[in-house]
Amino acid sequence: MGKKPLIVVNFKTYTEGTGENAVRMAKYCEEVSRDSGVDIIACPQTPDIYRVASAVKIPVFAQHIDGVGAGSYTGHITADSIKAAGAGGALINHSERRLVLADIDSALQAAKRSGLTAIICTNNIAVTKAAAVLAPGFVAIEPPELIGSGIPVSKADPDIVRDSVAAVKKIAPDVEVLCGAGISRGEDVAAALELGTAGVLLASGVIKAKDPRAALLDLVKNV
Amino acid sequence: MGKKPLIVVNFKTYTEGTGENAVRMAKYCEEVSRDSGVDIIACPQTPDIYRVASAVKIPVFAQHIDGVGAGSYTGHITADSIKAAGAGGALINHSERRLVLADIDSALQAAKRSGLTAIICTNNIAVTKAAAVLAPGFVAIEPPELIGSGIPVSKADPDIVRDSVAAVKKIAPDVEVLCGAGISRGEDVAAALELGTAGVLLASGVIKAKDPRAALLDLVKNV
Amino acid sequence: MGKKPLIVVNFKTYTEGTGENAVRMAKYCEEVSRDSGVDIIACPQTPDIYRVASAVKIPVFAQHIDGVGAGSYTGHITADSIKAAGAGGALINHSERRLVLADIDSALQAAKRSGLTAIICTNNIAVTKAAAVLAPGFVAIEPPELIGSGIPVSKADPDIVRDSVAAVKKIAPDVEVLCGAGISRGEDVAAALELGTAGVLLASGVIKAKDPRAALLDLVKNV
Amino acid sequence: MGKKPLIVVNFKTYTEGTGENAVRMAKYCEEVSRDSGVDIIACPQTPDIYRVASAVKIPVFAQHIDGVGAGSYTGHITADSIKAAGAGGALINHSERRLVLADIDSALQAAKRSGLTAIICTNNIAVTKAAAVLAPGFVAIEPPELIGSGIPVSKADPDIVRDSVAAVKKIAPDVEVLCGAGISRGEDVAAALELGTAGVLLASGVIKAKDPRAALLDLVKNV
Repeated sequence: MGKKPLIVVNFKTYTEGTGENAVRMAKYCEEVSRDSGVDIIACPQTPDIYRVASAVKIPVFAQHIDGVGAGSYTGHITADSIKAAGAGGALINHSERRLVLADIDSALQAAKRSGLTAIICTNNIAVTKAAAVLAPGFVAIEPPELIGSGIPVSKADPDIVRDSVAAVKKIAPDVEVLCGAGISRGEDVAAALELGTAGVLLASGVIKAKDPRAALLDLVKNV
Repeated sequence: MGKKPLIVVNFKTYTEGTGENAVRMAKYCEEVSRDSGVDIIACPQTPDIYRVASAVKIPVFAQHIDGVGAGSYTGHITADSIKAAGAGGALINHSERRLVLADIDSALQAAKRSGLTAIICTNNIAVTKAAAVLAPGFVAIEPPELIGSGIPVSKADPDIVRDSVAAVKKIAPDVEVLCGAGISRGEDVAAALELGTAGVLLASGVIKAKDPRAALLDLVKNV
Repeated sequence: MGKKPLIVVNFKTYTEGTGENAVRMAKYCEEVSRDSGVDIIACPQTPDIYRVASAVKIPVFAQHIDGVGAGSYTGHITADSIKAAGAGGALINHSERRLVLADIDSALQAAKRSGLTAIICTNNIAVTKAAAVLAPGFVAIEPPELIGSGIPVSKADPDIVRDSVAAVKKIAPDVEVLCGAGISRGEDVAAALELGTAGVLLASGVIKAKDPRAALLDLVKNV
Repeated sequence: MGKKPLIVVNFKTYTEGTGENAVRMAKYCEEVSRDSGVDIIACPQTPDIYRVASAVKIPVFAQHIDGVGAGSYTGHITADSIKAAGAGGALINHSERRLVLADIDSALQAAKRSGLTAIICTNNIAVTKAAAVLAPGFVAIEPPELIGSGIPVSKADPDIVRDSVAAVKKIAPDVEVLCGAGISRGEDVAAALELGTAGVLLASGVIKAKDPRAALLDLVKNV
């Protein structure tokens, strides 16, 4: 029986994870987390954070925050606003929502000031190292060519995961590493842990699954 | 006694309009709307849409939507997601959150498909005309140099408002025009109506006021 | 023998059209233009505008300009700077380099003040109409799903071209319409002219051709 | 007599540094560099790189490159294209032209492959450290609040400069540090060197000076 992974489920803007569906999806996550003892974080869309966070006890993270605070920033997402809605953290710089470097830094600092945990997403080892220097809670490496490919990064490119972990631990030992892209099954999670990560970041493997609860159960089966 | 204006209150990311403050601010809007008969739309931050829309009966609009739909669009705000959260419409292309032209069009089309009312924000007469061609519910012209200036556009540059109304009515008679920038008092609203607009878009004049309810009451006093 | 088309050749960042290759490619364009009497515009990369414009007599257009002028705008491309380098015009809002609406307007105004001809690129009929309202010299419609497809827009979707021409002529009779996406042969050009356009915008069909001069000759063969 | 600084002169989009003015300005830089023995790099606008690099023997750097290479990237600036135009390097991520983190990395890698020297611009110590991890030739720290202020960073905030140098040397000893913002006189340059930098990055202090040559002479007077 292995170490317990962290599983971060990104709802993206999938219909299956929007509005009432977001609440139901988060309840599946909560149920599987409770039954398995595995930590699962739900990342619904920004308008769904409040209702999801009000409905479940697992951590709810935003998919994105901007590098701005209170003020004349119409349409931006601040750390304070997601904190007030019940979020416990946020993805920052996801491959589908990149930020300029100065904004990654300011979003991260704002998240820390609000007591939020930040997961900075990265695309290769060099960028992973740059993100680690900023000292977020987590860095999540997702090679862009594998996102949505169905081929798990832990199998397709174990070296990038192993080397990312080594590089991050050298720069900032407290920063945990996640890996993503192509993750959908329990063996992918087990492989990710063996490579030294703290867990995985995934999306379609759960949200677009015919039976999301079964998909979640499969992810935690080796724990 | 004049025509009844529409008053759109943009909460921006002001602390005074975030989280519980957003709900309280929206309740002031609701109360003043009910007592005066003036339509008031509240535009809280995205994470606050659900709780605000659940708490008040006046329309709640998002401050921004992106030009994407369901899919792999982590961190984006879709028309469907804000609709599911209870919004009745959205600002599109606010001066603090500009969109590329193709995305203004796709955001607007998505809003229409979701049954939402769209307010496209613009900065001058040429851009107002381009926005009107796309046939949103409203175009809101806000000369950027007057935003946050305290000098109402209806006084500083009445021609831009009058000419915008004329240009829009010629291109798309069903599109209503709002004006913004520097609006804070009842006489600014009255002037905006006299120039042919359907109402005003404002932010700090209410949200940063010492007494927001009093500020709202002043805005509707001439009606 | 038909009407003479305008052919706009976008060099993109292809190696075959960079540096000395850009000069050679532009000379092919010049030679075919001179021999056929067809107007051909060369659009090299920004660093190549000066040397290309110094080497050929056909018009040279920039691939992009920003919506800013002289000042603290490091790394931006201004209308004045490309004019000084010898350009006669610019593409604005190409599908690979979209601009926010207000910047399309300000880039266009800056181009006009510098005496440059602007071609605003668009993706559908609604956006084409919005662009036409701004009164550029040309609007170039390129349905994104056909770009680089090898299927000419004039064959795959003649209605979008015909309807764009009709819509533009109604809004701004002086604005000419070009069409792009999938254009590579003389019959595509002929079809585009029959649909009412003034010509075509193309890239890989010439620049990535084994024999770019032969490709250009084929494009003008029906004239 | 002190160590010899590197002086990087950013022409921005100032009229005084556009077209023929860019050539004249670069010749002033060349003359002062030759007479003083101080290395001066000229950063004209992208359309001016070719004519400036053809006219002077000092290094010419681009103000910006994008994180893309050869291909369908209309309107983007590639490392290869500026190399072909005669540039010896580029600013990357200037405060007026920020890049997403992944693009800073890919622009830097492309610059290295083209044999170009890269100067990554940063805004604070955390971002400076992240940039240093990527191993560019130089990191240039410019506190945004001081840019264009007339108050030299070396006087207003010596600690940010000193701490940046210390942090960079710890992470990547080969990376040199420049500082910018508010630099206009020889004593600012001297102060920057004393704080451990390799030199300065400046713009208006030279380009907008009544007598740019005199301004350059003043900058090198202490060497």
